[in-house]
Amino acid sequence: MDYPPLPEAPNSLCPFMAGNESLTPHEVFAIRPKGGAPNSPGWTVRVVPNRFPALRIEGELFPEGVGIYDQINGIGAHEVIIETPDPDQELEDQPLGAITDVLRAYRARIIDLVQDIRFRYIFVFKNVGMLAGASLRHPHSQLIALPIVPRAVEEQIETARAHFELKERSLFADVLQAEIRSGDRLVYENSAFASFCPWASRFAFETWIMPKFPAAHFHTLDDYHLGLLAEALRHVLRRIRKGLQKPAYNLILQTAPFHQARVRELVPAEMEFRWHIEILPRLAQAAGFEYGTGFYINTTFPEEAASFLRRVREET
Amino acid sequence: MDYPPLPEAPNSLCPFMAGNESLTPHEVFAIRPKGGAPNSPGWTVRVVPNRFPALRIEGELFPEGVGIYDQINGIGAHEVIIETPDPDQELEDQPLGAITDVLRAYRARIIDLVQDIRFRYIFVFKNVGMLAGASLRHPHSQLIALPIVPRAVEEQIETARAHFELKERSLFADVLQAEIRSGDRLVYENSAFASFCPWASRFAFETWIMPKFPAAHFHTLDDYHLGLLAEALRHVLRRIRKGLQKPAYNLILQTAPFHQARVRELVPAEMEFRWHIEILPRLAQAAGFEYGTGFYINTTFPEEAASFLRRVREET
Repeated sequence: MDYPPLPEAPNSLCPFMAGNESLTPHEVFAIRPKGGAPNSPGWTVRVVPNRFPALRIEGELFPEGVGIYDQINGIGAHEVIIETPDPDQELEDQPLGAITDVLRAYRARIIDLVQDIRFRYIFVFKNVGMLAGASLRHPHSQLIALPIVPRAVEEQIETARAHFELKERSLFADVLQAEIRSGDRLVYENSAFASFCPWASRFAFETWIMPKFPAAHFHTLDDYHLGLLAEALRHVLRRIRKGLQKPAYNLILQTAPFHQARVRELVPAEMEFRWHIEILPRLAQAAGFEYGTGFYINTTFPEEAASFLRRVREET
Repeated sequence: MDYPPLPEAPNSLCPFMAGNESLTPHEVFAIRPKGGAPNSPGWTVRVVPNRFPALRIEGELFPEGVGIYDQINGIGAHEVIIETPDPDQELEDQPLGAITDVLRAYRARIIDLVQDIRFRYIFVFKNVGMLAGASLRHPHSQLIALPIVPRAVEEQIETARAHFELKERSLFADVLQAEIRSGDRLVYENSAFASFCPWASRFAFETWIMPKFPAAHFHTLDDYHLGLLAEALRHVLRRIRKGLQKPAYNLILQTAPFHQARVRELVPAEMEFRWHIEILPRLAQAAGFEYGTGFYINTTFPEEAASFLRRVREET
């Protein structure tokens, strides 16, 4: 099916182009290899507050009852990570150093925002293509800091906790070991990261990237491992783009919650969660079945998806 | 945004057109006002197994462990409810009697399938428009019988159970009473049904229709109430179509699970669930945030959506 391409803002109007820094709120982070003043050109990665934020950063958290319902005001942060000044360069087109810099920007913003004890969760994601909910073509990611833990994350933690109670092992470690041993759903592997199409994937060609070492929080990653992650990410994104012919996709970074009263203090966070990246190609629309049940119909076996992605020859 | 219209099969190829009965599997239900043989023309509503089923009806349920994962074979039923022989008549265009007949077909199929003790849940839904995941334009609904209870339903039941333990009242009754009393989110009401945009709606203009009387299972509805439901459904769908200019939408029917070992036998099913219809317009794409968190960003307050829908003047 052909969909119309995303509207392209004329260069003079695109708020993410170098030279248009005045069209965005003041930057909160930037990488400027040759120095230069904030909010001026010369950056390679730039982070700014979203001009149309889903949540606002000012104010105190104020949960209240409204009749039988509960309400909390929308305190949080909503930032845009502009991945490159060049609107035509997709993340996976960039050299490894530049991709590492984008990941470094994620890390820097999380390290900054995690100091705010109002925030329980910091979520980084990237929407590519209209069918994945993107509204601007210029390569960018987004960060949202939330005062509550997402239930999708809570569910993963609860499942891992039950597994730990039964086995005294990390569910994430067990899954990764099973995937690496069988190799049936493995897409890519380097010394620190493994990438695989998960068992019972929700989406066709859904692909995860996970560290091979225990780590609950993404922001504890050092530069060396950021570089290895950039390498894994570039391989996976290139294969998905070439193999599936530039599909729309969502990329989500799942890290462990912050500042949370832990149910059982003796269980280390690493046993209950391992940060990871999920890449969700959007080849079909979620429909009534998915929204009504929370189950997903996926017509491509993850073993077939992984085998296909392993065989894609990347362009250089 | 303009999206290309759904491909229209030429009439000679559309499996849902009167006269093309041979293009579908054998019908399992039909309404034929003037009689006539199965799988011949003369029907007004016709139910057939899906030719490309997500689940198959033959076989025994066989849950197994595969390494550290769990697997169950795809036993179930997947049927298509063809709502009319006329490809150009949307559900809400039809006379009340014809809409009632469609609901009667839902009920008949549930009553038949519920006798199969392998099925724990029967889910009826309708996808309209490409952005809602529809692949054929001819008006139709779908039914899927599942060997497991969807977690979306399980969550509603768990919440209602916690409410009952605290208050000894039905959460669904409390919500409905609050909505009818305040009227802020109310869209339509007749003697047996109320329609409202729910508090903290996931989707802009999300609208639910719920019976005002306790009823856990849709299939216990009598003909008189089916007629009143058809009336409510027609009003709501007409207002959404006119007010939002033919949006894509999903309609889902949530009924209580079947054959389930009840945790506490003394709690009547009516305290833990009330069947209802959810209409989910798809005006924006779910994106990385929604898939990663399970939370939904909705830029339209339900109070505004309901006020807008109350004011839409339906065409006659």
